[in-house]
Amino acid sequence: MLMTPDTLLTAAVTILSVLFVFYTGIVVAQMRGKHSITAPAVTGHPEFERAYRVQVNTLEQFVIFLPLLWLATIYFKLLPWLPALLGLVWIIGRFLYMRGYLAAAEKRSNGFLITALATLGLLILSVWGLITTWMAVTAV
Amino acid sequence: MLMTPDTLLTAAVTILSVLFVFYTGIVVAQMRGKHSITAPAVTGHPEFERAYRVQVNTLEQFVIFLPLLWLATIYFKLLPWLPALLGLVWIIGRFLYMRGYLAAAEKRSNGFLITALATLGLLILSVWGLITTWMAVTAV
Amino acid sequence: MLMTPDTLLTAAVTILSVLFVFYTGIVVAQMRGKHSITAPAVTGHPEFERAYRVQVNTLEQFVIFLPLLWLATIYFKLLPWLPALLGLVWIIGRFLYMRGYLAAAEKRSNGFLITALATLGLLILSVWGLITTWMAVTAV
Repeated sequence: MLMTPDTLLTAAVTILSVLFVFYTGIVVAQMRGKHSITAPAVTGHPEFERAYRVQVNTLEQFVIFLPLLWLATIYFKLLPWLPALLGLVWIIGRFLYMRGYLAAAEKRSNGFLITALATLGLLILSVWGLITTWMAVTAV
Repeated sequence: MLMTPDTLLTAAVTILSVLFVFYTGIVVAQMRGKHSITAPAVTGHPEFERAYRVQVNTLEQFVIFLPLLWLATIYFKLLPWLPALLGLVWIIGRFLYMRGYLAAAEKRSNGFLITALATLGLLILSVWGLITTWMAVTAV
Repeated sequence: MLMTPDTLLTAAVTILSVLFVFYTGIVVAQMRGKHSITAPAVTGHPEFERAYRVQVNTLEQFVIFLPLLWLATIYFKLLPWLPALLGLVWIIGRFLYMRGYLAAAEKRSNGFLITALATLGLLILSVWGLITTWMAVTAV
């Protein structure tokens, strides 16, 4: 099951999303340098604080996203490429969230919304997939 | 192995736990509104700060909980429904932790303890399951 | 596939890494006591703040590390024990990071670098494994 082309697509999207999470940390490190904010401080300049919030919020969303991405991939078999596609939408939403938030706190909403819709889609596919798998497995 | 009824229970508990993690973020957003704390600030009112700590602490506990939940589900076969049950206890403990902490910082201990015991249980099942699987796999 | 000796090694490393993540939280709790910093505050003494940064940074790195560790284990089959070994290096790097950072913020770099190299290695194995698996799966 982990060797189907659709699962490999999800694995590729996982790698991309992990790279994005790593990138949010690099931006924080850059802002530390730019605004001379020495560790362990996480406050001191609004732009640094926005970059730090991008990182922490992305972390919060990522631990929700990743389990749903894989549950949807494993259990939802109607359109097996859809979870990976929603995963790609999630990454794009996060990029827009980051770009918006770094510009101004009010500009973070659109990207956040795209991310949230992708997560909601994966949630629906996961629940759908679980129910149909449950019915198939327990059917006599 | 991922299609057994017990694994599907664990998948269902995973979805519930992910929804709880998402909910901790919604409470933070509500407290932002209630106490007029504008992003990117994460301080400014004790109730907001407690809600934020609930979210971050839940994140910390969740990344410990989820791998152990799945390792126990995959490798511990003596009572295959037990990992999912402990996962449910974890979620209940987190609800009590949240309710307690939002009321007062001192009231967070009971919920935290229930969560920690559920995690400890999953740790024991994971280690047990790994050892017994190792012995079965390497036995000639 | 989840029952091979090499996968069991990765599962064992996962348990060790989860224990380390838990340990970073225990150190934060100890520092709360030592410097009388009452929850929900996360500032108040440099040593406490360094311990808190160790915990949060480890969390950030852990959610990158764990998916790559498992993708490498599942898809990279050339040296199947290598992902688990890199996982062990990651844990050692994190220990050094913690010890260094608790002593002084400037001393966190070596441990961080070891962690980052282990993560980079797992990234390379994951991409390599995905590509070779893709070619094997889609080959006629």
